[in-house]
Amino acid sequence: MIIQGGIVRVQGDEFWHMTKVLRLRTNDRVELFNGKGGLIQGLIQSVDRSGLDFVALEDPKSALPQSTQWHVFAAFGTLKGGRADWLVEKCTELGASSLTPLLTERSPTVSENRLDRLQRVNMAAAKQCQRLHEMILNPPKNINGLLPLVAESKLAFLAVAEGTPLVSALTSSGTESSGFIVVGPEGDFTEKEVNELMQAGAISVGLGPHRLRVETATVALLATLMLWSDSQKTCDTLSHSQG
Amino acid sequence: MIIQGGIVRVQGDEFWHMTKVLRLRTNDRVELFNGKGGLIQGLIQSVDRSGLDFVALEDPKSALPQSTQWHVFAAFGTLKGGRADWLVEKCTELGASSLTPLLTERSPTVSENRLDRLQRVNMAAAKQCQRLHEMILNPPKNINGLLPLVAESKLAFLAVAEGTPLVSALTSSGTESSGFIVVGPEGDFTEKEVNELMQAGAISVGLGPHRLRVETATVALLATLMLWSDSQKTCDTLSHSQG
Repeated sequence: MIIQGGIVRVQGDEFWHMTKVLRLRTNDRVELFNGKGGLIQGLIQSVDRSGLDFVALEDPKSALPQSTQWHVFAAFGTLKGGRADWLVEKCTELGASSLTPLLTERSPTVSENRLDRLQRVNMAAAKQCQRLHEMILNPPKNINGLLPLVAESKLAFLAVAEGTPLVSALTSSGTESSGFIVVGPEGDFTEKEVNELMQAGAISVGLGPHRLRVETATVALLATLMLWSDSQKTCDTLSHSQG
Repeated sequence: MIIQGGIVRVQGDEFWHMTKVLRLRTNDRVELFNGKGGLIQGLIQSVDRSGLDFVALEDPKSALPQSTQWHVFAAFGTLKGGRADWLVEKCTELGASSLTPLLTERSPTVSENRLDRLQRVNMAAAKQCQRLHEMILNPPKNINGLLPLVAESKLAFLAVAEGTPLVSALTSSGTESSGFIVVGPEGDFTEKEVNELMQAGAISVGLGPHRLRVETATVALLATLMLWSDSQKTCDTLSHSQG
């Protein structure tokens, strides 16, 4: 735990990024954060060949988790060609709270190796996009495990070819800014799976006229929900400050 | 030009996709389309080892271009590691009308080789997602060439870190469902470039709290605008059918 006046030696990748990419120098102010919501203000005290010394100008603060919390369940275990990596990276960047590989009849497994790799992708992306709270990459869950969660959730969107256009569904769902995003596998959910999810309370939403790949549907849905929540939050803030 | 009763021999990739992936058989009904808006209904007359014969059941029809038309200008020439490929693929899938590599002070070139490759990515994605109208991949344009186009456009959104949240900007911009999307390079636009774009009439929009990569910002903005337009269109249709 660093406190005010404490010094942290920064080396390796972060040192390179700060000095070569961001071109920071002695006396530049910086903020360090740990991906668990902790952040600390300070400045660069000195730079030498192998690293830099950061001095904390105040005690660390703890950032509250965002009020916007979207939890993604996507059947991406069978995706090839870096598409799963990409899905994880983009969910991290866009600010998903968690991502859970979904096991379905047509996408029944995810290998253990792959999960390790995806966790590395998640961490690298969190650093790149300066997330204060890392995305939680959960172990895979099968659809029977998802159903009770959907039933308990306030809002769960299920991407389905013929669903209500997403933004219309959002307009009628009010100002909730958290919930579940559920996206099926290549070859889609079975009819039985769709029915079960709908009976559990999922709202089917359509994502336009084209046949989208799993990763594209996930990212399109997440991006729109995050940007929707983002503007709802601003409206709330405005109405509070006016009230 | 095929007319009713005409036969088309389908071989190669499409043959493989229709018979192995979609598992289509003799007498199954299918629709062929050419990516220029032409489509034709028919059925599979026969399947042999090397291909299948499609027989047209009616004359070809011409689908009108979608009323939703978003034109993307993104500075992605310097992206590495397949990120530019990915950006092109996702813009195609999500239904962008055109994509133009933008040349800026901090991203001044795109190599000729690369454009050929990106055009192949575009075509493959169009086929995969069954677009009736292919996305036009334009030659690169520099920012001075973009300014007069922005000035003439009804709606041009510029992705900027501190902009108005996108959905709030959309709510106040009404029901336009076409316009420009402008996204800067790695390292961002210069202040001068941002000022010039804003003076030409671009609306700066924010994409949430995280630092997004060029391709992520482009796709998040495009997905949200497409889904927004999609639901506006449905509202229009509903109000017409009620009127």
